[in-house]
Amino acid sequence: MRYWDDIAIGDRNAFGHYQVTRDEVLDFARRYDPQPFHLSDEEAAKTHFGRLAASGWHTTAMTMAMLVANMQAGEPQAGLGAAGIDELRWLKPVYPGDVLRCETVVEDTRPSSSRPDMGSTRTRMTVFNQDDVRVMSFVAIGLWRRRPAEGAPAVPS
Amino acid sequence: MRYWDDIAIGDRNAFGHYQVTRDEVLDFARRYDPQPFHLSDEEAAKTHFGRLAASGWHTTAMTMAMLVANMQAGEPQAGLGAAGIDELRWLKPVYPGDVLRCETVVEDTRPSSSRPDMGSTRTRMTVFNQDDVRVMSFVAIGLWRRRPAEGAPAVPS
Repeated sequence: MRYWDDIAIGDRNAFGHYQVTRDEVLDFARRYDPQPFHLSDEEAAKTHFGRLAASGWHTTAMTMAMLVANMQAGEPQAGLGAAGIDELRWLKPVYPGDVLRCETVVEDTRPSSSRPDMGSTRTRMTVFNQDDVRVMSFVAIGLWRRRPAEGAPAVPS
Repeated sequence: MRYWDDIAIGDRNAFGHYQVTRDEVLDFARRYDPQPFHLSDEEAAKTHFGRLAASGWHTTAMTMAMLVANMQAGEPQAGLGAAGIDELRWLKPVYPGDVLRCETVVEDTRPSSSRPDMGSTRTRMTVFNQDDVRVMSFVAIGLWRRRPAEGAPAVPS
């Protein structure tokens, strides 16, 4: 099990391979972001997108899909989810046909001041397309359990 | 048309009525965030969620749906989209059966230093549930066109 104590500033990871399809871009936009430039090439051509582009919130969702697949493929983690996100930036449009991938680096780790059994991390996520262009970046604030002290009972007696 | 020049610090808005359904929570989670606590009540009961809860990225997507519906119902806006998001925090779980709504307040406005025809805004978005509990908050960085100078040609001659 990977605990907060096993995570160090500078730890890096690279994973993910997400093929962005036109159908999925349209499905997401119809339900959650029905702005004209997310629904048609013609309308997108009138904007800086140039052609049909994915909703920025679709890009965050696709990134989460890559992150969860990577988590579930590896060592079990004592992660308690994310408290939030800082500095989310949509740097370049994401288009149908793009293939996305992720790189992460741990920028900070802190023990909790109020909960001695917990800690937090700040991890920079960068998403690239098939041309190695950075399309999105954010910092995820992760919450983790700390490794139980040696000899501590696994279950309170 | 509402331009950057028409937006002032302190401007407030309230809108949205989004019914969170179990089917939609499961659909989103299966595709984008298939962690056990977003897929079953039984697994969620083992976590601080207590019962099936929406992916945080689903909550951002539902919020975008409310925002776009509100934009499309009102005066046309000279908005150019969002450059990014700061200080996104998932404050409380969102459950099937919840009804979400939004409140916004403009926290800052700045003319662009490089593009005299553009400006940016920082708008705090707060999402509440039916019990007026804050479930999510973030700051959206919006990009806008500025109002063309009086007498300026609408189309370059």
